Amino acid sequence: MTLSRETIARSFQDLQESICTQLEAEDGKASFGKDSWERPGGGGGLSRAIVDGAAIEKGGVNFSAVHGEAPPQLQQQLKIDKGEFFATGVSIVLHPQNPFAPTIHMNVRYFEMKDGPYWFGGGIDLTPSYIDEEEAKYFHSTLKEVCDAHDETFYPRFKDWADDYFYIPHRGETRGVGGVFFDHLNADNGITREQIFNFVMDLGKSFAPIYTNILSIKKSLPFTEENRNWQLIRRGRYVEFNLVHDRGTKFGLETNGRIESILMSMPAEARWEYNHQVESGSPEEESLKYFRKGINWI
Amino acid sequence: MTLSRETIARSFQDLQESICTQLEAEDGKASFGKDSWERPGGGGGLSRAIVDGAAIEKGGVNFSAVHGEAPPQLQQQLKIDKGEFFATGVSIVLHPQNPFAPTIHMNVRYFEMKDGPYWFGGGIDLTPSYIDEEEAKYFHSTLKEVCDAHDETFYPRFKDWADDYFYIPHRGETRGVGGVFFDHLNADNGITREQIFNFVMDLGKSFAPIYTNILSIKKSLPFTEENRNWQLIRRGRYVEFNLVHDRGTKFGLETNGRIESILMSMPAEARWEYNHQVESGSPEEESLKYFRKGINWI
Repeated sequence: MTLSRETIARSFQDLQESICTQLEAEDGKASFGKDSWERPGGGGGLSRAIVDGAAIEKGGVNFSAVHGEAPPQLQQQLKIDKGEFFATGVSIVLHPQNPFAPTIHMNVRYFEMKDGPYWFGGGIDLTPSYIDEEEAKYFHSTLKEVCDAHDETFYPRFKDWADDYFYIPHRGETRGVGGVFFDHLNADNGITREQIFNFVMDLGKSFAPIYTNILSIKKSLPFTEENRNWQLIRRGRYVEFNLVHDRGTKFGLETNGRIESILMSMPAEARWEYNHQVESGSPEEESLKYFRKGINWI
Repeated sequence: MTLSRETIARSFQDLQESICTQLEAEDGKASFGKDSWERPGGGGGLSRAIVDGAAIEKGGVNFSAVHGEAPPQLQQQLKIDKGEFFATGVSIVLHPQNPFAPTIHMNVRYFEMKDGPYWFGGGIDLTPSYIDEEEAKYFHSTLKEVCDAHDETFYPRFKDWADDYFYIPHRGETRGVGGVFFDHLNADNGITREQIFNFVMDLGKSFAPIYTNILSIKKSLPFTEENRNWQLIRRGRYVEFNLVHDRGTKFGLETNGRIESILMSMPAEARWEYNHQVESGSPEEESLKYFRKGINWI
């Protein structure tokens, strides 16, 4: 049986459900809402937002499967011809309560043109306010394991890709400690469509265990007002990245996507201080040293 | 004596100084810092930030006068040829403490190419969280008076221009109650260079009295946590406008401008809630009705 778009979409929707269930169990207080929506041009989605949890301050786990005539902006961005497109994906951003716990993002996606090209894309990246080398090592090692089980070239390639993608040029900083990112992956890359799908699903399934493990360690750590302030400053950087650079966000805004789903990635709160300076020798200063490309966390 | 770039720049710098003095007097607690900076390619500026005032929560009054070889992005954006450019301006954003007081923005600017075209631009716009029709009427009437003293076509043209410019397409909302906005104004428009300069300076000089009048009324009003929350939600919209749409911000970010000066427009805090809804019959719902183009406030 060939791998149909319906199978991929259903698998992604199951993944969304499974991730929400695992996150709710770890949070222990809040649960995900359910907002289903329809796209006027075809298809729709299910947006699942969480807010004011014990561990998660604000977040969203979105599923969508949309299709129809490719709008001009899509043709331009993807360098594709006119025709009928289909796109499905799961997109996640979670902002934790505790300043020592990292924000996390995951996305898996599949795109195809009718009788035309197809590809998979995806990624997971971690954005701590305070760098924890052990945590970053655990995070990257786990991603490497998932990648290596499918193709040993994946982790090094996709790790570098994440370093480049999750970068804030106007700050000269990476968003966090990176992770993996890939796009336009298809059978032209020497593996089969099914193999790519299996990899993408394995990556998706690794997400909830990774983040619940991290949350379980970090969610109850004591913190100060100063720690919270630093977290809010870093969330300002997250906002800057998403609104100025993130391709998915920009594309959604330009094509009149469902605004509440697109901006589910925004933190509950963010702060800006003019010319904010970290104290010499502080944990904040130490963390800043790590917001750069090319660090081997493993 | 012809109106030289030096005269324009000096007048703008005097304007900055005068505005800071008037705002400090109204605030009564905080004062503006002074950060002068140099642009590697030529020129520089003086950034004046204020924070934690009695009336002003966060803001900046920036002056710059820069020159040099026009960078490629500038050539592209302004549709100009290679050559030496000169640009000077004053740019202001002030976010007040009180949720009933509006955020305000002003910008006056002058641009010229050596042996080539020149133009003035500028604008003032007001962004309340809670709409106050009397305040909006006072604001627009004052701007109209300033405009009418120079050219009776200015206010209607520049008011519409502001409605179009300070618009957040992905929200289907204006940023606030608008004001005036204009660009590329030069002697091609049937008035002399000196007349335009006088208009721009009069507009700039109207700024501090307008805002200190508004602040003096609003700064001490009692407010609730709910009012503050609404203010922070609206500040999220301000962030969205500035990072996604504002041409000056985007240009600054793309051309490696001084990041702290560019992002002085950011509020101290902003908030995002998934699918935020206002209560039926609430002042928040009432205010939302006014965030649209084409309202005659006078």
